[in-house]
Parts: sequence; structure tokens; C-alpha cells
Amino acid sequence: MKKKDPTIDRIFHALGDPTRRAILDRLSRAPTTVTRLAEALGVTLTAIGQHLQILEDSGLARTEKLGRVRTCSIHHAGFDHLEAWIRDHRSAWEKRLDRLGELLAESEGQ
Amino acid sequence: MKKKDPTIDRIFHALGDPTRRAILDRLSRAPTTVTRLAEALGVTLTAIGQHLQILEDSGLARTEKLGRVRTCSIHHAGFDHLEAWIRDHRSAWEKRLDRLGELLAESEGQ
Repeated sequence: MKKKDPTIDRIFHALGDPTRRAILDRLSRAPTTVTRLAEALGVTLTAIGQHLQILEDSGLARTEKLGRVRTCSIHHAGFDHLEAWIRDHRSAWEKRLDRLGELLAESEGQ
Repeated sequence: MKKKDPTIDRIFHALGDPTRRAILDRLSRAPTTVTRLAEALGVTLTAIGQHLQILEDSGLARTEKLGRVRTCSIHHAGFDHLEAWIRDHRSAWEKRLDRLGELLAESEGQ
């Protein structure tokens, strides 16, 4: 079995929620404030705060306080981790397919 | 707002579950049978069947009946879709960053 990866668990938990994906859709276009996110998505500031916390904990977003305004943006770390997970699962499988091809070629040659 | 994407909803729902990710871990190493999956993960055949159905519906795995044995393997379609989603979110954001850099350079040049 592969090793436990608590980061990927957090990432998939974060991405499992449609409101959090809607937040990322918005942040991928431009950084914005917590207030604007709440307005755009029609949810309370408290709810946005909770979703952002989960996105921050998984490395998919980050927030920064500039003066009195909290600005949120996409963070690359979570996306990097997710891409590595995909690559890992895809490549292991593709290597197996290559090996299978070699075995078939060998058996045909006999 | 971005368009609704029911496929990505299904993919993230599928990947939100640790047992389904454990199934993909295993399939990424090699195709296997439903029975072996159930044994390896210590869950019932019924549970494996339900998880596989969700993985198939999201294009992440596929099953094939060869004689009396049902064999499961990784399917690339779901992984392709997931990669496109990441690229889309990342690239929109990176384009914005580039544009921000240009604006800063312009304002410094004035």
C-alpha cells in the first residue's frame, strides 16, 4: 500500500465541497476580498471564513490582511500537490501498460 | 461564474472518499479483480462494487468482465478531466499574475 498522505486527504476533502470549488473558480480569475466572495456566492461571512480556512489548510488558497481588508488568492502549493498525486497514479499505471506491451511482444516473438 | 461541470463534481465526490482513493492506489500499480480488491482493503464485495461504480461513473476506473472474472483498472478519462480542471484554475490565475506584473512595470515606468 502507498504511504498515508494527510495533505492529499485535506485537499480532496476541501475540493469535495461545491461552495469551496466556487470560491476557487472565483479566485482563479483574480484575488478578492472575503466580503466580495460572500456577496458573490450568496453566503454569510462566517461561512466564507470557514471555507477559506479549509482551503488554506489544504494549501489551495491563502488570505492576507492588508490594512483592514482580508484579501484571498489562489495558492499554488495545493495545486502542485494534487498534480503530483495525479502524475503518480497515472505514471505507475502507464509504466505497467508499457511492461505489459513488452511482455506481449516477447511472447509473440517466441 | 464558470459553467457547471457535473463531471468534475462526480470526480471530486469520488476522490473525497479514502477507500476509493485506496482502490485507485492499488489499481495504479496493476489491474486486479474485484475479489482481490475486497481482500486487500478488508471490505465486503458489495462495498467494493459500490465504490467501483462511483469510480466508473466519474471515469477514474473501469471494469471489464473476462470470462467469470471482473477485472478493474485505472481509466485515463477522469484523470484527464481532473488535470484540465487544475490547468484551468492555475493558468487563469497565473495569467492574472503576469498581467499584474505588467501593470506594476508600467506604473513604475511612469
